[in-house]
Amino acid sequence: MVKIAILGVGTVGESVARILEENRDIISARAGKEIVPVLGVVRDLGKERSVSFPLTTSLEDALSRDDIDIFVELMGGVDEPYQVVKTALENGKSVVTANKALLAYHRYELQEIAGTVQFEFEASVAGGIPIINALREGLSANHIEGIRGILNGTSNYILTEMIQKGADFGETLKIAQELGYAEADPTFDIGGFDAGHKLLILASIAYGIDAKPEDILIEGIEEISADDIYFANEFGYSIKLLGIAKKEGDEVELRVHPTMVSNSEMIAKIDGVMNGVSVIGDKVGETLYYGAGAGGDATASAVISNLIDIVRHDKKFPMLGFKKPLESGLRLRNREDIETNYYVRTRVEDRAGVLAEISKILGDFGISINAVLQNNEEKEETTNLLISTHKTKESQILSALKEISTLDFVKDKPFMMRIER
Amino acid sequence: MVKIAILGVGTVGESVARILEENRDIISARAGKEIVPVLGVVRDLGKERSVSFPLTTSLEDALSRDDIDIFVELMGGVDEPYQVVKTALENGKSVVTANKALLAYHRYELQEIAGTVQFEFEASVAGGIPIINALREGLSANHIEGIRGILNGTSNYILTEMIQKGADFGETLKIAQELGYAEADPTFDIGGFDAGHKLLILASIAYGIDAKPEDILIEGIEEISADDIYFANEFGYSIKLLGIAKKEGDEVELRVHPTMVSNSEMIAKIDGVMNGVSVIGDKVGETLYYGAGAGGDATASAVISNLIDIVRHDKKFPMLGFKKPLESGLRLRNREDIETNYYVRTRVEDRAGVLAEISKILGDFGISINAVLQNNEEKEETTNLLISTHKTKESQILSALKEISTLDFVKDKPFMMRIER
Repeated sequence: MVKIAILGVGTVGESVARILEENRDIISARAGKEIVPVLGVVRDLGKERSVSFPLTTSLEDALSRDDIDIFVELMGGVDEPYQVVKTALENGKSVVTANKALLAYHRYELQEIAGTVQFEFEASVAGGIPIINALREGLSANHIEGIRGILNGTSNYILTEMIQKGADFGETLKIAQELGYAEADPTFDIGGFDAGHKLLILASIAYGIDAKPEDILIEGIEEISADDIYFANEFGYSIKLLGIAKKEGDEVELRVHPTMVSNSEMIAKIDGVMNGVSVIGDKVGETLYYGAGAGGDATASAVISNLIDIVRHDKKFPMLGFKKPLESGLRLRNREDIETNYYVRTRVEDRAGVLAEISKILGDFGISINAVLQNNEEKEETTNLLISTHKTKESQILSALKEISTLDFVKDKPFMMRIER
Repeated sequence: MVKIAILGVGTVGESVARILEENRDIISARAGKEIVPVLGVVRDLGKERSVSFPLTTSLEDALSRDDIDIFVELMGGVDEPYQVVKTALENGKSVVTANKALLAYHRYELQEIAGTVQFEFEASVAGGIPIINALREGLSANHIEGIRGILNGTSNYILTEMIQKGADFGETLKIAQELGYAEADPTFDIGGFDAGHKLLILASIAYGIDAKPEDILIEGIEEISADDIYFANEFGYSIKLLGIAKKEGDEVELRVHPTMVSNSEMIAKIDGVMNGVSVIGDKVGETLYYGAGAGGDATASAVISNLIDIVRHDKKFPMLGFKKPLESGLRLRNREDIETNYYVRTRVEDRAGVLAEISKILGDFGISINAVLQNNEEKEETTNLLISTHKTKESQILSALKEISTLDFVKDKPFMMRIER
């Protein structure tokens, strides 16, 4: 029998306990031993919980218990769980976590502390999809050329609704909140930060890149409008909040932003609250992983798969997958050096000469136009000019947009979205 | 340094050798050691091969070499590789194979023989997609409710072309052969046998079911016609050759056949030569895995991921994933007891009363009709009546079809395809 303590008994913690009970037959058959929760740590003992093991509010008591084999960290936050996981690992106890924020900030320190003690985190990225497992073990023969992930179900639900129903952002967010797909304060999800944390974890396994959320480009979906949807539909694009990792020579781009991506790509076909990750390996080509990215049971499925792994194996390998450092040191690419295609929406006075002047500025910065659309349904004095470009450097488009925004016929700060081909 | 011998140096074997060389940096970083082929076994030493290690024709010599740590079996066939793998495992040598036929027939004997020796086979199902890994480790907390796999790229290419271009089977097969997507003798692929072998491997990991290819329902795509495509398009279905596993109580259905499946399902969106596997876990819900199912480099990517795993770990777990038998013994469901929706194409004389009579027979067998279509483009004396049914037992539809085929106005043996909802 393997004894575990669950630190943080919320939705996921309750699911872990319930599934260990409900699926005891298959879990014991696979692990070879029974896995049993013997203690839970909670903040509030008064709250009703449907678990049958004892609860305490004392992390210290839990950490000092010798009979516990594995600690499951589901507390949330960064600083407190860091101390807790550190202590457990230093005591030689295996740890499983679902905490992406913890790993976005402390994964390399924790790997160092863990040493030969097992520390697993499948649930931290894309919930029930075993993407850590796939990337770290399944694709281990490959140099990873790129990753594109739909890593946040809330954002994907909102974008899917906007695209399919032509609905606007604010009203769709409200529905998502009513359905429980979005938090009361949705910033962490729709602002791209949640996806950013997950992307950093994937990037460590793929590239050994040690970066923090502050180091990478993160943009949210808040400013996407009906005009952008119109443009995307006209040209056969979907709009997805993508976490993108891309290797170019010795540099790795890491960025999270709303992205236009061709409807013919598998990643564009992932709709609603579902998550998906497309990985390009230099030898295997594209593989894609799809499933539920959140929810108590899906997340618990990943947590328990880690528990079973720990029970079955003596020791796997360093948590981030590299037994020794990569010979070629990869470094994070500067934002200015990103090269991609761009979409630009600019509200302008509806008069002759406007497009010519904007085209000229783009041309001055070496940017060539791919397509132009004007959404003229409303008869107003201003109109939205929708432009896509050929491949351009981020620094060039940013400079061009700065200049365009100073033109007297431009009525708003231009909005830019990247197009991935 | 870890020394391997490659038994069978064809397309995949050459890819394994080349990738071990080309990606030495990342493979060594992940494995912690260098993996080096030191011997290849081939049938014909005269054939030109771009490998730098010594070749021999003697399996005995290879198997008796003490310095080899891992044998990679890429010979093909069943009986000879069985003897070879058996000998290697009995000698305590780890083995990696890509051989699905070997495993379709001998996986349980080989698991027994392997004991605590590592024996891995990621490449045997769906080529470069790490589906063994996902099913055995990633989803290990779940009872698997069902699996639907596009496991044969040749068939999927042909069906995709037929659906998208309205092309007929024979002409599409010819193009596939010219493009190298189909063998000169394509029976193994288009007849569903290749997919059947792979399904059996997945079913062992999901359910611990010990069945052989002869035990399960296998039908190919050879009889699919333009009328079937017309019906599928009208009702929003794709036609896929699916390997299906489905748990119903204590029974497991295992079957391979062309299947109509709604275009809204992710598995329906997998086109061309690509493979994909959708798995329903009782806790995680649907997850789906997509990628290249064949090709030297994609297959080698999976083979090498197994090599890296073996080098990193001391011992994983029994190859098919269960440390002890499942408490509830599952058994294979009889074909007659399968329940699903059906599509029936019947060539009939084009006159009044025909549909009524066929409906009556279906009704007599307790089968209710869902939809009827008649493709009247050709002005002939006979027409194809296209019917879909509500949920029905296989035994009922087979009996009804037998009776229908005796009617005087029925001009051909009726063709039946299953519809999965």
